[in-house]
Amino acid sequence: MLRTPVITLTTDFGLKDPFVGIMKGVVLGINPEAGIIDITHNIERQNILEAARVIAASSKYFPAGTINVAVVDPGVGGSRKPLLVVTKDHYFIGPDNGLFSMVYERIEPDFLKVIHLTEPKYFLPSTGSTFHGRDIFAPVAAWLSKGTDPDNFGVKLDEYIKLSITKPVLSGDTLTGEIVTVDNFGNTISNITVDELANLVPLDSRERFKVSSGSRQMTVLNYYAENDGGSLSAIINSFGQLELFVFRGSAADKFNLKTGDKITVTLV
Amino acid sequence: MLRTPVITLTTDFGLKDPFVGIMKGVVLGINPEAGIIDITHNIERQNILEAARVIAASSKYFPAGTINVAVVDPGVGGSRKPLLVVTKDHYFIGPDNGLFSMVYERIEPDFLKVIHLTEPKYFLPSTGSTFHGRDIFAPVAAWLSKGTDPDNFGVKLDEYIKLSITKPVLSGDTLTGEIVTVDNFGNTISNITVDELANLVPLDSRERFKVSSGSRQMTVLNYYAENDGGSLSAIINSFGQLELFVFRGSAADKFNLKTGDKITVTLV
Amino acid sequence: MLRTPVITLTTDFGLKDPFVGIMKGVVLGINPEAGIIDITHNIERQNILEAARVIAASSKYFPAGTINVAVVDPGVGGSRKPLLVVTKDHYFIGPDNGLFSMVYERIEPDFLKVIHLTEPKYFLPSTGSTFHGRDIFAPVAAWLSKGTDPDNFGVKLDEYIKLSITKPVLSGDTLTGEIVTVDNFGNTISNITVDELANLVPLDSRERFKVSSGSRQMTVLNYYAENDGGSLSAIINSFGQLELFVFRGSAADKFNLKTGDKITVTLV
Repeated sequence: MLRTPVITLTTDFGLKDPFVGIMKGVVLGINPEAGIIDITHNIERQNILEAARVIAASSKYFPAGTINVAVVDPGVGGSRKPLLVVTKDHYFIGPDNGLFSMVYERIEPDFLKVIHLTEPKYFLPSTGSTFHGRDIFAPVAAWLSKGTDPDNFGVKLDEYIKLSITKPVLSGDTLTGEIVTVDNFGNTISNITVDELANLVPLDSRERFKVSSGSRQMTVLNYYAENDGGSLSAIINSFGQLELFVFRGSAADKFNLKTGDKITVTLV
Repeated sequence: MLRTPVITLTTDFGLKDPFVGIMKGVVLGINPEAGIIDITHNIERQNILEAARVIAASSKYFPAGTINVAVVDPGVGGSRKPLLVVTKDHYFIGPDNGLFSMVYERIEPDFLKVIHLTEPKYFLPSTGSTFHGRDIFAPVAAWLSKGTDPDNFGVKLDEYIKLSITKPVLSGDTLTGEIVTVDNFGNTISNITVDELANLVPLDSRERFKVSSGSRQMTVLNYYAENDGGSLSAIINSFGQLELFVFRGSAADKFNLKTGDKITVTLV
Repeated sequence: MLRTPVITLTTDFGLKDPFVGIMKGVVLGINPEAGIIDITHNIERQNILEAARVIAASSKYFPAGTINVAVVDPGVGGSRKPLLVVTKDHYFIGPDNGLFSMVYERIEPDFLKVIHLTEPKYFLPSTGSTFHGRDIFAPVAAWLSKGTDPDNFGVKLDEYIKLSITKPVLSGDTLTGEIVTVDNFGNTISNITVDELANLVPLDSRERFKVSSGSRQMTVLNYYAENDGGSLSAIINSFGQLELFVFRGSAADKFNLKTGDKITVTLV
C-alpha cells in the first residue's frame, strides 16, 4: 500500500520559529497519512529567485504526484494571488510572485495549467493576513494529497508572474554566463548548462573548453579530487551545470567569487 | 488506516549533534509507525520561557491526540520531575521546570492533569543523568503513541512549576505590553493579543488604535505590503498578536528593537 | 503492519541547499514507504572523523534493520569506492574514506562484511561525478529498504579504509585522554569512557577520580545541577563518556577548551 503523495516544503522561514512545524500540523490534521519532506527553510529572506532555482532543481527528483509547497511571500495578505500550478508529473502551491518561473519555462506537456486558489472551504476557517503558509497553502496541499481534484480549488489563470531568468549568451565561440548559486561547500555554480555547452562542441571533447573567471583560466575536470593543488577548477556538476570549485576548500571564499560574477567558456 | 498519533519535538539541542536523531531512533524502536515532527531544535539554550511560548503557539495546530515532547532541561538528572501533561486534545511530555506554563493557563476543560513519570518500565533500560530526552521522554512518548494509558506512567501531581508570564497592563485607554519574540524576519511580536485589544474597542474599528514604540507611532495595518515605505508599522498577525514590522526588512535590526521593549496601544 | 526499515542520513551538506531533500526524493521514488530520519547535516565540511563519531554514537539507538547513509565525501567521483557495510543489526552506506571506522572497530559478531557497490542497476540511470549521495547512496539505501539482498549490490571487499581513532593512554594510575567533541551546549566530551574508567576503579567509587584539564582539577559529579557555582565540573554523560561542563553555560567558551585538549584522570 502506497502512502499518499509526498508534500515538499521550501520556505524562507528558518528553523528557529515554529512556523514550519505548524504547517506540518495543519497538513496532518487534514491528511494524517501525508508524508512531508523539507527541501529547505533557509532560503534567503524574501529571495524569490533563489527559491525558484531550488524548486526547479529539486522537484524533478521526486516521484510523480508530488506536491511542492513553496512559501517565500513578502506580499502575503495583499493582492497577490495564491496559486496551484499543475504540470504533467507534479503540483506546485504558493504565492503568485514568480516562485514558479522556472516551472513555467519547461516545454509542454510538462506545464499544464495555473489555478488561482479561491475556494475558502479548503483553507483554514479563520485565515489571517500574515501566514498563508498555514492558512491556505498547507491545507490546500493536504486536500490535494487526499485526492481533491485540482479544479475544485479555484479558477484557471492565464496571467501569472514570471521572473526573468538570466541565460548565458553565445557570441562566436564564447559563451558568457554568471554565477547564480554558492553552495554549502563554497562551490560556485553558474547558469551555463550542458545543453549550452553541447552547442559549442560535443561534451566528449570537453578538453576543448577553456573556462575563465576574471583573469583565471581553467579546463573542465571530471571529478573534484582531480585537482588537489588548491587552484580554482571547473567541473560539470551532477545537475548539468558548470561549477567552479577548489578541492576540499571554498572557491567562493578563496577566490572572492559571488553570485553575478561572469564566467566564460571559449572553444580552443 | 490512520497512523498513530503524531509526536512533536521542541528542544534546545541544535541541529549539529545527533541528539535529536537519537531520540527519533528510540521512538521508532518502540513504535515503528510513529510520525515525528520537528517544531524547532533551535530554542535558545536553556531558555524555558521561549520554549513555553513555542509550545503554546504550535500545539493547537496539531490534530487531537498529538504528543508534544519538549526538552529544555538544565536540571536533567537532578531532583526535577519528568512529566506527562494531559489536556483535552493533546499530551505534553518533558521536565517540570515551567515548560508547560502556558498549557496550564488554558481554561478548563482543556487542561486535565499532570502525571509524574515514575514507572521505569517505560524508560530505556539504562537511564543516565544527562539525556532524559533519550532515556525517558522519547520512550514514554512512543509508548503513549502506542496506546498505553496515561495513568500507567506514574502518579498524578498537584503541584508543578508555573512560570510567571508577563501580561499587558490596561490603564485608562492605554494598554502597555512588551516585545516577547523576534522572529526569523526580524518582526517583533508583542504579548498584546486580539483579546486585550478587543477590550479597548471592537477590532473592526482598528483604525482607532495608536501604537507606540519609544517615540514612534503607528496605526494598525491590514497586511505587510500596505506600507512599503520602510517605516515601522504594526499589524495583528495570524496568531492574533500585535506585531511591529518593516516590509521586506527587519524591524528588530532597523529600529533596534528587542524582547522586553515596551509597546503601548492607545485609543484615539 | 510495520513500515520498512528506517533510513538515517548523516551529511556535511548543510540545510540551505536542496541536496538533502533531493536524496529523500530519490529514496521515496524507489520506496514510497521508506521512513527517513535526519541525524545531522551539519557535520563540519569534509570532517570524516567527526561524522564517524556521530554515526557510532547514533546508530545503536535505532531499531534492527536500520540503514544508515553517511555522505561526507570529498573524493566523490574519483577512485574511492562506494560501500555497503553490514553488521549484525544495521547497515551503513557511504564512501570508502574512513566514515565507518568506528563501525569496523566493534567486536564480532556485530561487524559482518563490507560490500563494494558495483551494480549500476541499483543506481540512478545517469550517475554524475559530484553527487553520489543522490546517484548511488540514496537509491541503494532505498532498494535495500525494499528487501534487496545486500550481496546483490556488489562484491565483498577485504580491504577498506580505517581511520586511526585516538584512544586514552593508561600510565600507572593516570589515564590521559583528550577532548574529541564540543556539543551544542559547549560541553566538552572526551574520548575517556566508562570502560577505561572501570579499569582504574569500580565506578561506584567514582569519588576517587581526580579529573584534570590544564591546571583545573575536578571530581566527577552525578548530574549537571550539582555544581551551580559556575566552575568547571566533570560528569560521566549518558553516552558513557567523561565530559567537562559548566552548569547553564558553555565550558568550551568560558574555559577556552577545544578538541584535542588533554584531560587526565588520576586515582586518589
